[in-house]
Amino acid sequence: MSLEIFPLLAALAALAVAAISARAVLREDQGSPRVREIAAAIQEGASAFLRRQYTTIWVVIIIISLLLFFAPGWGWQASLIYIGGALSSTAAGFIGMSMAVRANSRTATAARSGISKALKVAFRGGLVMGMSVVGVGLLGVFLCFLWLGNPTLILPYSFGASTVALFARVGGGIFTKTADVGADLVGKVEKGIPEDDPRNPAVIADNVGDNVGDVAGMGADLFESYVASTVAAMIVGLVTYGSNGVLLPLLISALGIVASIISVPFVRVRKGKNPSYALNTATIVSVIVTAIFAILISSYIFGWGIGWNLFVAVLVGLISGLVVGLTSDYFTNNIRRPAQLIAESDQSGTAIGILTGFSFGLISTFLPIISIAAAAVIAFIAAGFYGICLAGVGMLAVTGIVVASDAYGPVADNAGGIVEQSGMPEKVRKVTDSLDSVGNTTKAICKGFAIGSAALTAVALFATYQEISKVSSLDLLNPSVMAGVFIGAGVVALFSALVILAVGRNAFKMVEEVRRQFREIPGLMKGKAKPDYARCVDIATKGALKELMVPGVLALLMPIVVGLVLGKAALGGFLAGSIITGLIFGLLMANAGGAWDNAKKYVEMGHFGGKGTPTHAAAVVGDTVGDPFKDTAGPSLNILIKLMSMVALIAVPMLLM
Amino acid sequence: MSLEIFPLLAALAALAVAAISARAVLREDQGSPRVREIAAAIQEGASAFLRRQYTTIWVVIIIISLLLFFAPGWGWQASLIYIGGALSSTAAGFIGMSMAVRANSRTATAARSGISKALKVAFRGGLVMGMSVVGVGLLGVFLCFLWLGNPTLILPYSFGASTVALFARVGGGIFTKTADVGADLVGKVEKGIPEDDPRNPAVIADNVGDNVGDVAGMGADLFESYVASTVAAMIVGLVTYGSNGVLLPLLISALGIVASIISVPFVRVRKGKNPSYALNTATIVSVIVTAIFAILISSYIFGWGIGWNLFVAVLVGLISGLVVGLTSDYFTNNIRRPAQLIAESDQSGTAIGILTGFSFGLISTFLPIISIAAAAVIAFIAAGFYGICLAGVGMLAVTGIVVASDAYGPVADNAGGIVEQSGMPEKVRKVTDSLDSVGNTTKAICKGFAIGSAALTAVALFATYQEISKVSSLDLLNPSVMAGVFIGAGVVALFSALVILAVGRNAFKMVEEVRRQFREIPGLMKGKAKPDYARCVDIATKGALKELMVPGVLALLMPIVVGLVLGKAALGGFLAGSIITGLIFGLLMANAGGAWDNAKKYVEMGHFGGKGTPTHAAAVVGDTVGDPFKDTAGPSLNILIKLMSMVALIAVPMLLM
Repeated sequence: MSLEIFPLLAALAALAVAAISARAVLREDQGSPRVREIAAAIQEGASAFLRRQYTTIWVVIIIISLLLFFAPGWGWQASLIYIGGALSSTAAGFIGMSMAVRANSRTATAARSGISKALKVAFRGGLVMGMSVVGVGLLGVFLCFLWLGNPTLILPYSFGASTVALFARVGGGIFTKTADVGADLVGKVEKGIPEDDPRNPAVIADNVGDNVGDVAGMGADLFESYVASTVAAMIVGLVTYGSNGVLLPLLISALGIVASIISVPFVRVRKGKNPSYALNTATIVSVIVTAIFAILISSYIFGWGIGWNLFVAVLVGLISGLVVGLTSDYFTNNIRRPAQLIAESDQSGTAIGILTGFSFGLISTFLPIISIAAAAVIAFIAAGFYGICLAGVGMLAVTGIVVASDAYGPVADNAGGIVEQSGMPEKVRKVTDSLDSVGNTTKAICKGFAIGSAALTAVALFATYQEISKVSSLDLLNPSVMAGVFIGAGVVALFSALVILAVGRNAFKMVEEVRRQFREIPGLMKGKAKPDYARCVDIATKGALKELMVPGVLALLMPIVVGLVLGKAALGGFLAGSIITGLIFGLLMANAGGAWDNAKKYVEMGHFGGKGTPTHAAAVVGDTVGDPFKDTAGPSLNILIKLMSMVALIAVPMLLM
Repeated sequence: MSLEIFPLLAALAALAVAAISARAVLREDQGSPRVREIAAAIQEGASAFLRRQYTTIWVVIIIISLLLFFAPGWGWQASLIYIGGALSSTAAGFIGMSMAVRANSRTATAARSGISKALKVAFRGGLVMGMSVVGVGLLGVFLCFLWLGNPTLILPYSFGASTVALFARVGGGIFTKTADVGADLVGKVEKGIPEDDPRNPAVIADNVGDNVGDVAGMGADLFESYVASTVAAMIVGLVTYGSNGVLLPLLISALGIVASIISVPFVRVRKGKNPSYALNTATIVSVIVTAIFAILISSYIFGWGIGWNLFVAVLVGLISGLVVGLTSDYFTNNIRRPAQLIAESDQSGTAIGILTGFSFGLISTFLPIISIAAAAVIAFIAAGFYGICLAGVGMLAVTGIVVASDAYGPVADNAGGIVEQSGMPEKVRKVTDSLDSVGNTTKAICKGFAIGSAALTAVALFATYQEISKVSSLDLLNPSVMAGVFIGAGVVALFSALVILAVGRNAFKMVEEVRRQFREIPGLMKGKAKPDYARCVDIATKGALKELMVPGVLALLMPIVVGLVLGKAALGGFLAGSIITGLIFGLLMANAGGAWDNAKKYVEMGHFGGKGTPTHAAAVVGDTVGDPFKDTAGPSLNILIKLMSMVALIAVPMLLM
């Protein structure tokens, strides 16, 4: 068997696993009519969001593909491949999300038979997403390469994925927090009805939001990183080692898929062990297996000497991915000191709780920064720019299992919502609550992983930028490079602010609508009338897409403006500035947000007086501040830094004119 | 008259103006015995802080001067000059602060005769500080140069000023917020007594804190920037244009002093005009006069062609200083939209208010970043690295008047406190309130100016670093440079977090002490017994110095560690990373903090329901979050980026070994 065909086989294997898992999930009991009804509403809402989003996306995709058609250095192939990238990302997201919204009712029903069964269903639901992302991603890259033969020409594929990610992740992030804040502010605070109560008109939008943000958004985000890091390594690999240099990243991605599949059976609840143990074991197994595969394949292709060096690059990528993820876990998990200290400081008042969470968020950035910097330096020493790209490929090789663990979270969360809304017994809710709390941990780890991998991908794209733009140096002593760094850093700050303000504005509209429905629909509060769920979903969707406009245009245009006005060296500096600040703000927002969330949960577990105390009130404010931090602005920065790097790469031929 | 002697004359003129202003202030009426008593307590507290601080500072100064004595490339002259720099900064701070704490009671008394008289006394009190900073600074640089003849050898003078600034600004920042939070949490919140009530044991510490942070701290901060930017320009000037290149920055600083003195008479209240108009007019006059002087002197020395280019560099520095200051004013002043929108958003709850303020803080960073980047690029195009240094000199030329306007703020603030504590009539309090509100604006402008000038100074030191370290390039494509950038950015995040957490811990101790006094001193609440003010001052002081340890050591050691482990190119990247992130976080924290503060004041003016509403409660939380942002962490970053640059410069000979 020729090695060249192996990536294709691995991609198909991933899709096969996705299909098998999907069938297994769909065969599960859908539950009582009430459960089916709620699940149908969520599915409907999710489809409504996707339909409207796709309508808008495709307008943008077509405009950009036309621009690519006429752009210097590109042409009709680029247009087609760009559309292909957008389609692939959309397809992966669509499959994953469709499955997630179907797995939730089945998980809720399975929860009646205990935690082990429920975990299996929920995880399989997430696995469909994880395997779709890596399967479709690798397949797309492989086919594009088969067609065009030159990795640089595959960049538009990755750019297409970036464009979709902008909508899915940033738009999805605005959507999910709009719905969440709208549901909580009127439902919990003003009307005093519980979370996930079916009388709340925004409850379906809120459930949809979990899927939109954490499944479709996260999937599109990591799809983009996965594709971009592979393509970047292929481009630099071609220059460094010819066709073998192109082959290696494809093979490592393929072997990462195999490793992820091997690790799946490790996801089972052992007696007396926390379910998070099962998920973490699977991730660690896949990392170890990938590392073993990597040393074998790289020494097979390149011989022991060079092979070892290339392996080191892959390994540091894998390790720094773990470090970033575990740091996020440490700083957000409420079995650890930071979240507990935040809860403790909430006793001294809201402001102190906010300040403490913010400070720990800042501190949480340090170790990941050092580990990514160290990975880049070691990988470079081992194998030059190619090594840096391989570190990215290594980190992302285990994307399949990481996304599966992450997408599991919203399935469990939604299952809990369905249990609540359909009035199942308390002990079933306990099972879903326990699954949900694990989901929070895996979500935090995955968020850290997403940011870390976005940063490393952006660094790899940066390495690619020097390769294809032929800048001889990006010297900080050249003031236009320095100015570029300043502007790149500034754009990150501006973009985050725009996104946070967008949530505020949009949530305001949602609050108005929910209030209106409670006021105008007779019998709603008594549960005798059904609220208009669809309208709330619609408001969140429309608002998210509208609010996306300004930050989206900013992200797409700034690299071109900087490149045209200050030149390609300044553009390199711009990318560097945006990567560094994006990494810091991304980690700060994700980790502070997660820590506030879990500090609140820690108080709700009965610490420091528990619910109903001023301490709890303070913790709730922290959680609300943290929501758009961790679910909107933070993840949006992943997209921003990759998208701007990608735009820069696409714009290079224009700058060389 | 030889031009060389002119800086000396200007420095002496500044000191003469300081002396005359001081005499004029001291001749004013000290007021009633009660006023004198309160003022004496503040003076005592301030002296207690300074005494204890100096004891600690001098231990550190002596250790570092011994290290310098044995350090490669330095020696006994460096030790001496270092001590001289520390002494000079201390002297300027001591004079300024002594005068500020004497001007407050006299301003309070003068307020009985109306606003015009009170403004004059308060401004004169601030002017002593402003003129001391520039007078002592320029005199010190001039004398060092006269002695050693080589500008590079004057660096330790600037390093000495940096060391003092670390204590005065970071330690002072922790002190002032400890006292503020302690006084407010127990006094206003728990006991329900008004602000500045003499029964509050922490009230004197709070008043002392205003002087410690905003007078002594700001003075030491700008003293450092002033000296460092002048020395940096002299070093690079010598390489570029020989002795004329050394002379020009000295002359521009000297002419800036003259321009500041010329602008002083413009500080008078015109009928129907806001007093802030008077202060802003003075600043703008001094900028224009400095610009005119700059074009005359540079074309006189260098001829029209080169002279014009050098003038352009000075001019862009002056302009970007104005832009940064005015942007801070726009985003924090509550006659503008941002602060009003924050107040409005407080209606939707605490979290939304926090998020809105944070977002505007982020947005407020963009224009200053662009303007500083543009200034650097234009100055470089006009005159190379020398141009960048001259931009710094230009921006800081008007330091005298800016510090005077800033130091005026705490004088007016304290005067208001004295009016309250001594029970003067309501209409006197109105006068001091109006002065105080102007003080808040000038403080915001000066904070922006301090950050902007710190960033530009750090950029100038960066230019000096490349000059004396002989790095041929700081190429971002060199991963160790890139790693340096990452680590430099990370240190800023870590440092900010440590400082914010320090305030929390220290404030907690203060709260305990204030509670203890209310509990254990009989008759305190009824005003029949005097609280133990000195103990509160002592707790804030000790705590501040203790908490300073970890961040201080971090700032001093990190550049050396990075330089030794990763090399001098990485150290250059480290400085760049810290400057960019420091600028963004510094502006974010200062402006968000100022905006929350003024949003609260806007609500207190009666908007959105005014005091006692949930909106006001939300605004108060925002203000409390903003306090350590704007008065501790934000300003501390100015010190951090300059101090780390200075340590790098001092460490260069070690790295070249």
